[in-house]
Amino acid sequence: MSQKTVGELNPPGRILLGPGPATLHPRVLHALSTPLLGHLDPAFLELMDETVTLLRDTFRTENQLTIPISGTGSAGMEAAICNVVEPGDTVVVGVKGVFGQRMAEVASRYGANVVPLEGEWGRPIEPEEFERVLKGLPKVKVVAVVHAETSTGVLQPLEEIGRLARDKDALFLVDAVTSLGGVDTRVDEWGIDICYGGTQKCIGAPPGLSPLTFSRRAAGVLDSRKSKVTSWYLDLSLLQMYWGGDRVYHHTAPISMIYSLREALRIIQEEGLKERIERHRRHAVGLWAGLEAMGLKLLVPAEYRATPITTVQIPEGVDDAAVRGALLQDFGIEIGGGLGPFKGTAWRIGLMGYSSRPENIIALLNALEQLLPKQGFEVARAVGIVAAETAMSGA
Amino acid sequence: MSQKTVGELNPPGRILLGPGPATLHPRVLHALSTPLLGHLDPAFLELMDETVTLLRDTFRTENQLTIPISGTGSAGMEAAICNVVEPGDTVVVGVKGVFGQRMAEVASRYGANVVPLEGEWGRPIEPEEFERVLKGLPKVKVVAVVHAETSTGVLQPLEEIGRLARDKDALFLVDAVTSLGGVDTRVDEWGIDICYGGTQKCIGAPPGLSPLTFSRRAAGVLDSRKSKVTSWYLDLSLLQMYWGGDRVYHHTAPISMIYSLREALRIIQEEGLKERIERHRRHAVGLWAGLEAMGLKLLVPAEYRATPITTVQIPEGVDDAAVRGALLQDFGIEIGGGLGPFKGTAWRIGLMGYSSRPENIIALLNALEQLLPKQGFEVARAVGIVAAETAMSGA
Repeated sequence: MSQKTVGELNPPGRILLGPGPATLHPRVLHALSTPLLGHLDPAFLELMDETVTLLRDTFRTENQLTIPISGTGSAGMEAAICNVVEPGDTVVVGVKGVFGQRMAEVASRYGANVVPLEGEWGRPIEPEEFERVLKGLPKVKVVAVVHAETSTGVLQPLEEIGRLARDKDALFLVDAVTSLGGVDTRVDEWGIDICYGGTQKCIGAPPGLSPLTFSRRAAGVLDSRKSKVTSWYLDLSLLQMYWGGDRVYHHTAPISMIYSLREALRIIQEEGLKERIERHRRHAVGLWAGLEAMGLKLLVPAEYRATPITTVQIPEGVDDAAVRGALLQDFGIEIGGGLGPFKGTAWRIGLMGYSSRPENIIALLNALEQLLPKQGFEVARAVGIVAAETAMSGA
Repeated sequence: MSQKTVGELNPPGRILLGPGPATLHPRVLHALSTPLLGHLDPAFLELMDETVTLLRDTFRTENQLTIPISGTGSAGMEAAICNVVEPGDTVVVGVKGVFGQRMAEVASRYGANVVPLEGEWGRPIEPEEFERVLKGLPKVKVVAVVHAETSTGVLQPLEEIGRLARDKDALFLVDAVTSLGGVDTRVDEWGIDICYGGTQKCIGAPPGLSPLTFSRRAAGVLDSRKSKVTSWYLDLSLLQMYWGGDRVYHHTAPISMIYSLREALRIIQEEGLKERIERHRRHAVGLWAGLEAMGLKLLVPAEYRATPITTVQIPEGVDDAAVRGALLQDFGIEIGGGLGPFKGTAWRIGLMGYSSRPENIIALLNALEQLLPKQGFEVARAVGIVAAETAMSGA
């Protein structure tokens, strides 16, 4: 037995402006501390139904098969892929960031013939690229793409790719981890067959669940599989018997996490999805104006930017770790470092869910205005703050 | 957009005496509502290290590779199996309940040649059965068994089977979902190579994580695999880079759940693991005495009973659903129904973690003393309560 005594849980206060998790609304924190119900209690089953109803609204879908997967966004990604992909199936994946790469890797592990569409990180993929590749392939099972690529800050337009996938009789699979609840994401209208999100970004709940929805067409593929899904935990044919009318026990649902998701979705309903998306946009515009007024360069051209996550080029001579360390230690603000080719050369600033608030933008810009000059990058005081405020009031 | 308004989260109060989740300690509820840190924040990495240290104590192991899997107990089961099993490997599984069946099913999905040891539910498996089967097999990769079978209430002795597995040069894999933190579980001393638990039973945290530990021998198997683990989400070679010294991002850790697990493990450390196990035993003895004094029959002979979960035969003529429904609605007490061959014929009563308290036993026995006579099963008032109190004070 270790004799080390572990102290009281007392984490420092943080303003979470990284790529997720975002800061939680007090009501979501409160929901987490609600005493448990059993996972088969009629009162809990009712909460599950309500959660699913609210999830459908957020996905803008009527899909029957809509559930939160009991794992983080990456578990949702794996569930999205492993339930429809069988060995030998062709999967075309847009890969212009870490999460596109991850989709390709997961599909490959489940035996897919993966056709990656690669290109410069920081730009979306043109529908013409999909069109050309799809033309050259005899049969495609899935066309997969990331909506808001968390590693680059690019928002990928979806409608046209959805049309191409449908013309090819392929399932259209979309990673909406960073967009769902903060960026317009229309599952039914855009012909998305499979879509998954994360809870810790624009949805405003803690990390640990992944909302997932399957169209009727995608659900039909489950029934016509030749082999069982390798992953028992993520097998939707079993999961839907618990979440659906039969209530057959599969695994013990993560009760507290469902409580928090339900509360976060209630807050979305109260705010209004449209108003929430507009809030994410307005604040992002303010952040962008502030950063650019300070002389910083954003990696993604304005027309392709995902509002929840902004990538900023680290100026020459500025020490990445020193700035992020001082932000965290001296100002209690977390931002994210770069991933892949952007490691050490970019910062990732998230404005998601409850974190997307003017005072957080002001606090961050103010901190950067103090820290960057210490690194030799001159900034006049308040120039970023004033630009952000002006942009937000006019936006 | 659905116009249905979803009301405030306000679940009815419950005393959770089913097969898990158990009622949470107020300190664990409080930990859940702690504001988030980022998953790469140095302050969070320290909490992760502390959590792992406490987990090792609870598993009674020095294993380096000890982490909580970001999913429920069934995800831990799948991680335990899929990381070491490759197609064609022989896996011998003790199957005398639902969770033994599930291990066999998961191993089979990952391509194992599964050799099930089957037999009457409600009894442990004799080591001689393992010995005989192992003798007849040329090469065995894994010998797997459930410690406390939640579907039957049987505690499976492990030491002898561990010795047999080691003699066969097979990995010894143990499901400790219902035993960990409430029943003596000695990973190192008993030669267990792979062991996983659940958080929502005797550990005293909400459902959603699965503590997992791999011996050096089991970890070595990860390095010598011929193929990648099919599940990316559960791939320990990636997970240990995040939980270990490198801190390479894999998936976003479920922060709130880790907070709650850490707090639950702190409570175990304060109580003392030995004292906690003794508390689970003492209260189980009280429950058994009370139920038997009321004339109810327990399915498992006393010497094989798992203290956290007790299976009770439903008396002839008594309506399962009516009694469980009235317990829930009129007394706020949840107990579990039977699974598999025990469906409709047995109840499962859990005394786990914070739920294992004398007042809960008294409340349940008192409720049964009122409900059973309505179903034609006569019980004198207070006979169960008095017997339970006597047994607990003497035990």
